[in-house]
Amino acid sequence: MLKGLSEEEQRWVERTMNSMTLREKIGQTMQDHAGRLPFKEADEDKITAYLERYPVGSFFIGGEIILKAAGKAGDYRRWIETYQKLSRYPLLFSGDLEFGAGSAVRSLTAFPPLLALAAADDGALAYEYGKYTALEGRAAGFTWALAPGMDLLLNWLNPVITTRCLGDNPERTARLASAIIRGMQDHGLAACAKHFPGDGVDFRDQHIITTVNDLSEAEWLTTYGEVTSRVIKAGVLSVMTGHIALPWAESADRTEAPVPATVSSAITNGLLRERLGFDGVVISDALDMGGFLSWGDYKRRIIDCFAAGTDVLLWPDTRYFEVMEQAIGDGAITMERLDQSVRRILEMKARLGVQHLDERGRDNQALELFDDRLAPERTAEALRVGAEIARRSVTLVRNRAGILPLEAASVSKVLVIMLNKVTEGRQFEKMGRFVELLRARGLEVDVLDQFEPLSTLRTWEEAGKSWDAAFMPYFMPLHGMMNTARPVGDAAKAIWAMQHAETIRPIGISFSTPYLLKDIPFLDTLVNAYSLHEETIEYTIKAIFGEIPFEGKSPVELTI
Amino acid sequence: MLKGLSEEEQRWVERTMNSMTLREKIGQTMQDHAGRLPFKEADEDKITAYLERYPVGSFFIGGEIILKAAGKAGDYRRWIETYQKLSRYPLLFSGDLEFGAGSAVRSLTAFPPLLALAAADDGALAYEYGKYTALEGRAAGFTWALAPGMDLLLNWLNPVITTRCLGDNPERTARLASAIIRGMQDHGLAACAKHFPGDGVDFRDQHIITTVNDLSEAEWLTTYGEVTSRVIKAGVLSVMTGHIALPWAESADRTEAPVPATVSSAITNGLLRERLGFDGVVISDALDMGGFLSWGDYKRRIIDCFAAGTDVLLWPDTRYFEVMEQAIGDGAITMERLDQSVRRILEMKARLGVQHLDERGRDNQALELFDDRLAPERTAEALRVGAEIARRSVTLVRNRAGILPLEAASVSKVLVIMLNKVTEGRQFEKMGRFVELLRARGLEVDVLDQFEPLSTLRTWEEAGKSWDAAFMPYFMPLHGMMNTARPVGDAAKAIWAMQHAETIRPIGISFSTPYLLKDIPFLDTLVNAYSLHEETIEYTIKAIFGEIPFEGKSPVELTI
Repeated sequence: MLKGLSEEEQRWVERTMNSMTLREKIGQTMQDHAGRLPFKEADEDKITAYLERYPVGSFFIGGEIILKAAGKAGDYRRWIETYQKLSRYPLLFSGDLEFGAGSAVRSLTAFPPLLALAAADDGALAYEYGKYTALEGRAAGFTWALAPGMDLLLNWLNPVITTRCLGDNPERTARLASAIIRGMQDHGLAACAKHFPGDGVDFRDQHIITTVNDLSEAEWLTTYGEVTSRVIKAGVLSVMTGHIALPWAESADRTEAPVPATVSSAITNGLLRERLGFDGVVISDALDMGGFLSWGDYKRRIIDCFAAGTDVLLWPDTRYFEVMEQAIGDGAITMERLDQSVRRILEMKARLGVQHLDERGRDNQALELFDDRLAPERTAEALRVGAEIARRSVTLVRNRAGILPLEAASVSKVLVIMLNKVTEGRQFEKMGRFVELLRARGLEVDVLDQFEPLSTLRTWEEAGKSWDAAFMPYFMPLHGMMNTARPVGDAAKAIWAMQHAETIRPIGISFSTPYLLKDIPFLDTLVNAYSLHEETIEYTIKAIFGEIPFEGKSPVELTI
Repeated sequence: MLKGLSEEEQRWVERTMNSMTLREKIGQTMQDHAGRLPFKEADEDKITAYLERYPVGSFFIGGEIILKAAGKAGDYRRWIETYQKLSRYPLLFSGDLEFGAGSAVRSLTAFPPLLALAAADDGALAYEYGKYTALEGRAAGFTWALAPGMDLLLNWLNPVITTRCLGDNPERTARLASAIIRGMQDHGLAACAKHFPGDGVDFRDQHIITTVNDLSEAEWLTTYGEVTSRVIKAGVLSVMTGHIALPWAESADRTEAPVPATVSSAITNGLLRERLGFDGVVISDALDMGGFLSWGDYKRRIIDCFAAGTDVLLWPDTRYFEVMEQAIGDGAITMERLDQSVRRILEMKARLGVQHLDERGRDNQALELFDDRLAPERTAEALRVGAEIARRSVTLVRNRAGILPLEAASVSKVLVIMLNKVTEGRQFEKMGRFVELLRARGLEVDVLDQFEPLSTLRTWEEAGKSWDAAFMPYFMPLHGMMNTARPVGDAAKAIWAMQHAETIRPIGISFSTPYLLKDIPFLDTLVNAYSLHEETIEYTIKAIFGEIPFEGKSPVELTI
């Protein structure tokens, strides 16, 4: 359970601050990217030299490490302990643990994404989502989740938070995000509510450009403002600012070009700290994103981001030290301002107990880890939570012809119209698994995934081919730089092609956007399943065949 | 010059109707697709047998023919004359002549697209656009242009009419479309205003699904209604209905699913004929489009389309004859209704003079054609019109840093950031031409078209590379089934990547959507050029180097 600082902890913070050089203080405000360091854990001399030159305060561990490493929790913990041991001050290790510790560590539990949790809409389940992320995450060495999202999917065209959010309803989002945050922080993992001042209004992607939340002040206060207030009340230790502009919050002379929140004092200092009362750590979103890069040259970007009130800058690269030293030297940034951020960061570290690391760099507050996995009963509990979310999230959006559930006894041959192929994606993004699971049920499965000529289905029909049911699964990878969650390219052609059939009325299944009916309104039948999470695919098939009920409720409004 | 029917022409219409069998009458209402017939012009017996079995009234000649044939006008004319000679009744030959006869025939003149004409905004030029389309088109054997578009680009997300329309202003669209129509019809080519009741409101593509024009009645009347009224007053001989629903025009019991105009009596009979007073030929958009296919089974689609008031159905395939014979037989469609359409079609044929074909199938009203080209002076005139549109359309949208025009003397090395590659496209869609023309000016050109890693530009900068100017051309093929005109996939990644540079501020050039700033708002400099038309690329480069002024005015509102 996290609590306020004890006197002893407060003394550790002050003592630590007093012992730090300027460069070490600057380092506390930088979050480095572990994947950009070429060292193995055995390269202790090189790591020591790096940390002496760049005494950063925290590391993010993301995709690059995952893909290179074997993906076992024990490997991560050993890697992290090496860094802890070699660093003069205890480090924080963060990950994009948006859907459980399995988001970062292959051997740990990957939950369905937030939107699925929102479809199950159960606060107790949300708390467990946070709890097991923390227990498994801490056991692997993580102390900081850059999660959960508290965004609102107000614009269906938004390509960033499609399934990485809790829907479009502020009350539900505040309630479930707060429960996740408590679940994480009660079990020793700092949470991070993101992306302030709120993603989900723009149709664009801040990986590519600065996006704009163009709600009015009144609209913002009852939506994103309300959600943020409630997660602050829930005690969230950190908030991430996004490369997202909020025009109403800026003074008139700053509104010509969009001002990303990451460089906006009006948003970070004014709105988040003063008006909403947040006194924890503000971390920026990644500084290599397009939404930040166009703000100015490197030096201007860094100084504006820090001066805006940001405590931790995410991946500024090592030029950061020289720019900040110079800014302190010439007065562009005051020592007082720097100390303010360093103190907040050390306070968060003290709350997480990292000052108690032993001489091996081991965090004894973290739960025990046996080899590459948690104690079996714990892993089983996390898996049960994931399975329950999967089971309770599958949503029957439309069943006009009443064909669902299918009668298993009368279905032996099925057609799968692959709206798009995701054969090579991230570990959680294998569309082929859907077909495998159908075949594993003993079904004969034909797959159509070539849409030139458009009339192939019609030709098959005329040749007398027929199926007992047809499925049309859809998926679009997030972070795929598609700039859209809509079916484009081959998927769009597939929508055209399937209408050439006279008799086949496929059952649509969206494993990503909940808004597939916007582009395919003629579907008689649609199931929303929110992701290609393994158990989600299984439960989707079970629900389709009537073995479990469809329990999910759409977490976004659908006018259908 | 087209005029009302003489008594002799009226007699020809009645005499022809009286001589026709039921099947021949049905055939008049079908427009076949020449590209789907496997015959060469020498296969006269096969063509005769086909036309006896399927006595269609008109043929569309489109992309397939163009790609297979050498693309000379004389080839087209000989092919068409063969069909005319072998058909019992004179045929019409249509093409998607949206940007001149060169839209269909490679050796003839391709103009810049309608949106470029709208940027030049000159009624006299619009008349010549129609006139030379007609003179060259007739010379190649065409009698019917499925053009011009009279749509309005009211929704910037619309992926269909992006550059295939005259902008977003009803007055300009009505004025220029009317001038094109007069230019065509004064020179013997029937025009076709499309796509009634109006494309450009939906974000989707009727090639893929039925789209919806969801304006209110009042809004529709002052926009699409006004434009349609004015092209009817200009005497347009035909109007194409689109697979586009207009909910306000339907009775309440028909609004559950979108009703494409192509099956809507309320829209074709009610709105277009009775309320707006159109008494010419109504042709449907292509019946193999997704926006039509989901309406019902083949028979229902065909009968509903014809019963709605459609005179000519575009590409229904040869099953059409049996379905229509049966519908007449069982009273689903009356002979009176069929005769009504046949009479309208024959009247249009008489107006175009095709009853005067000589025994070789030759249209002596058409201008003389020497081998594969018009008399040189005529081609030169058409080319002059195309060049003038290109020259006058190039639009300087933004020049914040004042870097345009460039001083040619101080530019020798340039960088081209290829937002996307269109190396293999239609004849008019070669992005590589832009680079060739820069090199032809003696410039040293570096091209960046790989965006992994994202930091390549930054690496180049750090290595000391520099350029006197950087260009960022953008193109998105229409009909590419992308379902969007926005930069997606690699193009989106390129937008991210280019911001990694600290010093390079590229000059954006959109060779397609006029709305590129929506997705790339940080550009300091943007030129809209509307297409990869050869001369447009040349004049764009000239304008960039100050050799001609930027004369184009944006034909859509841009809030920048």
